Amino acid sequence: MSDHVYKQIKLTGSSTEGIEGAVNNALAKASRTVKNMRWFQVVDTRGHIENGQVAHWQVTIEVGFTLED
Amino acid sequence: MSDHVYKQIKLTGSSTEGIEGAVNNALAKASRTVKNMRWFQVVDTRGHIENGQVAHWQVTIEVGFTLED
Amino acid sequence: MSDHVYKQIKLTGSSTEGIEGAVNNALAKASRTVKNMRWFQVVDTRGHIENGQVAHWQVTIEVGFTLED
Amino acid sequence: MSDHVYKQIKLTGSSTEGIEGAVNNALAKASRTVKNMRWFQVVDTRGHIENGQVAHWQVTIEVGFTLED
Amino acid sequence: MSDHVYKQIKLTGSSTEGIEGAVNNALAKASRTVKNMRWFQVVDTRGHIENGQVAHWQVTIEVGFTLED
Amino acid sequence: MSDHVYKQIKLTGSSTEGIEGAVNNALAKASRTVKNMRWFQVVDTRGHIENGQVAHWQVTIEVGFTLED
Amino acid sequence: MSDHVYKQIKLTGSSTEGIEGAVNNALAKASRTVKNMRWFQVVDTRGHIENGQVAHWQVTIEVGFTLED
Amino acid sequence: MSDHVYKQIKLTGSSTEGIEGAVNNALAKASRTVKNMRWFQVVDTRGHIENGQVAHWQVTIEVGFTLED
Amino acid sequence: MSDHVYKQIKLTGSSTEGIEGAVNNALAKASRTVKNMRWFQVVDTRGHIENGQVAHWQVTIEVGFTLED
Amino acid sequence: MSDHVYKQIKLTGSSTEGIEGAVNNALAKASRTVKNMRWFQVVDTRGHIENGQVAHWQVTIEVGFTLED
Amino acid sequence: MSDHVYKQIKLTGSSTEGIEGAVNNALAKASRTVKNMRWFQVVDTRGHIENGQVAHWQVTIEVGFTLED
Amino acid sequence: MSDHVYKQIKLTGSSTEGIEGAVNNALAKASRTVKNMRWFQVVDTRGHIENGQVAHWQVTIEVGFTLED
Repeated sequence: MSDHVYKQIKLTGSSTEGIEGAVNNALAKASRTVKNMRWFQVVDTRGHIENGQVAHWQVTIEVGFTLED
Repeated sequence: MSDHVYKQIKLTGSSTEGIEGAVNNALAKASRTVKNMRWFQVVDTRGHIENGQVAHWQVTIEVGFTLED
Repeated sequence: MSDHVYKQIKLTGSSTEGIEGAVNNALAKASRTVKNMRWFQVVDTRGHIENGQVAHWQVTIEVGFTLED
Repeated sequence: MSDHVYKQIKLTGSSTEGIEGAVNNALAKASRTVKNMRWFQVVDTRGHIENGQVAHWQVTIEVGFTLED
Repeated sequence: MSDHVYKQIKLTGSSTEGIEGAVNNALAKASRTVKNMRWFQVVDTRGHIENGQVAHWQVTIEVGFTLED
Repeated sequence: MSDHVYKQIKLTGSSTEGIEGAVNNALAKASRTVKNMRWFQVVDTRGHIENGQVAHWQVTIEVGFTLED
Repeated sequence: MSDHVYKQIKLTGSSTEGIEGAVNNALAKASRTVKNMRWFQVVDTRGHIENGQVAHWQVTIEVGFTLED
Repeated sequence: MSDHVYKQIKLTGSSTEGIEGAVNNALAKASRTVKNMRWFQVVDTRGHIENGQVAHWQVTIEVGFTLED
Repeated sequence: MSDHVYKQIKLTGSSTEGIEGAVNNALAKASRTVKNMRWFQVVDTRGHIENGQVAHWQVTIEVGFTLED
Repeated sequence: MSDHVYKQIKLTGSSTEGIEGAVNNALAKASRTVKNMRWFQVVDTRGHIENGQVAHWQVTIEVGFTLED
Repeated sequence: MSDHVYKQIKLTGSSTEGIEGAVNNALAKASRTVKNMRWFQVVDTRGHIENGQVAHWQVTIEVGFTLED
Repeated sequence: MSDHVYKQIKLTGSSTEGIEGAVNNALAKASRTVKNMRWFQVVDTRGHIENGQVAHWQVTIEVGFTLED
C-alpha cells in the first residue's frame, strides 16, 4: 500500500432519499469511467427545497482512486 | 434567476430518527412563516446521548429563501 | 448543569448501513468503558469503496461526557 | 459607538456585471425593509455559467445594522 | 427537548469593560424583542483603540432561541 | 435536476483587468474541452505586483459541470 | 524541553462569572487526576441564557500535559 | 528564485469604486516605503454602507516582498 | 475614512488576570512605537498552567493602525 | 505569465522516508501523463503506523499545471 | 475493517532533527502504553528558536488506534 | 515569561533540500535584523516543479519574537 499514488476528484451526487443515496448515485455514475476508487470524504451536504420540503439532497464528496502503473 | 435576492437563516432541527429527519423537522416548522425557501446547507451535525445511545439528532442548516418584490 | 466539567474524546465508528449506524456503533463500543456520555458532534464523514460502491461508512465524532466528582 | 448593538443578516445578490453589482443589488432590495445598515462582509462569491461564459455572479454578504432603541 | 426547532441570529454587543459585558449588552437589547433565547456562541472578539488603550470591546455572538409553536 | 451528477475541477485564470476578467479567461480556455459547465465558486484571489502596482490578477475557481450519460 | 512528549485533552468548564472562571473550574477538576498540565488553548466559548441573561459560561479548552517517563 | 526570502505584511485599502481599486490604493501607499513587492492575496473583503448603498469598499491583502541581501 | 490605508500587526500579550489584561498589556507596549492604532481582533487565547492553575493568560491579537501620509 | 490558465489536481503520494519523499513519488508518477506541472501545495500530511513506528508517510498535494493552447 | 471502532488522541513530539523525528519520538513514547496504533495526521508544526536557528521542532499529531473488544 | 509581549512576522523561505531547510533559510536571513526570535509555526508548505520534480520548497512560517523594553 505504501507505494501507491492516489488521485482525488470532487463529485456531487443527488438523491430524493438522503445523504447515503446521493453518495451512492455519484459513485455509480463515476464508476463507469473511473477504476480503482478506494475511499471518499463528504465535504458538503446541501439540498433543494420545494413546497417547504426537501426535494432532493446534494452531497459533494472527494473520491480517491489508485493511479495505475 | 439572476435578479433574485436571497436571505439565509440558520435553523436547528431535531429528530430521533437521523439527519434527514432533523432537517425535515426544521423545514416543516419554518415553512409556517417563511415562504419561498429554495435551498439549505448542513453546517453542523450533533446529538444528545442517553444510556450510551443516540437519544436525538440535532442538525443545523442554513436555509436560503427569495426576498419577494 | 453549570458546575459540571466535561471531557471530550474523538471516536471513529463504521457501518455498512450509513452515517447513523456508524455513530451508533462507535457509541455502543465506547459505552462499555465510558460513563455519562452526554452529546456528540460529527467532525468527519468518510467511507471505503469496493467495486464502485460504498463498502462501509466511517464517521468520526467528538463525544462529551461528565467528569464525575 | 460603544453602546450600539448590531444584528447581522446574510444575503445573496446577483448581477450580470460582477461582484460589486451583485452586492449593490442585494443592498438595494434589503434597504426597502432594513434600516441603519452599517457594513458588510463578502463571505462567498459564486456564479452561474451558460455557454462557457459567466451568466451572472452570485455574491453572499453578511450585513450589520444597528438595533434601534 | 428533542422536538424543538431553534433559530440562530448573529449579534454584536459593545462594552468598555470587557468580553462578558459586551455579550450581556447584546443579550439585554435583544431580549426586548426576542423571546426564548437558550444559548450563545462567541464567534468574533474585536475592539476599538483610542490613545493606545482599548476604548471598547465588540463581541459577536450567535444566539439560539426556540421557535414557538 | 435531481438526478444529475456533477464533477468539479479547479482552475486559475489571470487578467490585467481584475477579478471578473480572470474568471472569464479561465472559463474561456476550459470551455474548449469541458462541456456542460454549470457554476463556479471563487476560492482564492491573488495577484502579481510589478513596480508597486498590480501587474495581473490570478483568481482560482472551482467549476462544476454535468457528467453526461 | 526538546525531549518531552505532550498529550492534549479537551475539556469544557462552566462558570456563572465569565470565561476565566470557566477555564479555572475545568482545570481544578482535571488536576485531581491529570498531573503535569503545562498549557491550554481556548477552542470554543459558549453559554446558556435564562431570562434574557447569561446563566453560565461554557468554555472548551485543549490542555497539554507532559507524558511522564 | 529559490534562494529568496520573502516577508508578508497585511494591509487594508479602501475605494469607492470596488475591490480592484481598494487593492491598488493599498499598494500605492505601501510602495512609498516597501520595495520589491512581488505578490498579494486577498484575505478579507468588506465595506461601509451609507443610505442603503456601498459608501466604500475595504479590502485586506497580504503582500509578499523580497528581503534584500 | 474611505481614503485611509491600514497596516495590521500581530502581537501576543500576557497577564495573570485574564484576557482583557493580556490585550491591554500588548497594546501598552506596542503604543510606545506604533502610532494611530485603531482596532484589534483576538485571534488566539492560550495560557500557561502551574500547579493545576492558570499561571498567566496569553492572548494574540491583530492590531490595525493608519499608515500616515 | 499573465495569460496562462492553470488547472489543479489533488494527489496523494507515499514514502517510507518522509514528507519530501512522498511528494516526490506523487510527482514522479503524475509526470508520466501530466505535462507542464508548475507548483504544488501540501494540503494533508498523514501516515500509517505498524508496531508503534511510522510504516509510511502519506502526503496529499494540489498540483498546478499549465493548460496548453 | 468495517466493524472496528477507533479512538484518536492528540500528541506533540519534539526533535532537533526535523518533522519526521518529532513524529517518531511522539509515537515511541506513546507506544509504551497505547496498543494498536494505526494511523496519524499532522495537525500543527512549530518549533523553538535559539540564536536565530531552530533549536527543536514540535509536531502535533492525532493518532488513531483500535478499541479492542 | 508572563510579562513579555511578542510580535509575530510572516516569512517565506526556500530550499532545494526540503521543509527543514526552507525554514532554516528564512530564519538565517531574518536573524540579521530581528533579535530575540523565540518560536515559529509553519502555516503553508508549497514548492515549484521543474521537469516533473521538485525544484525547490517554499515554506511560510510565522515567527514570534520578544518586544524589548
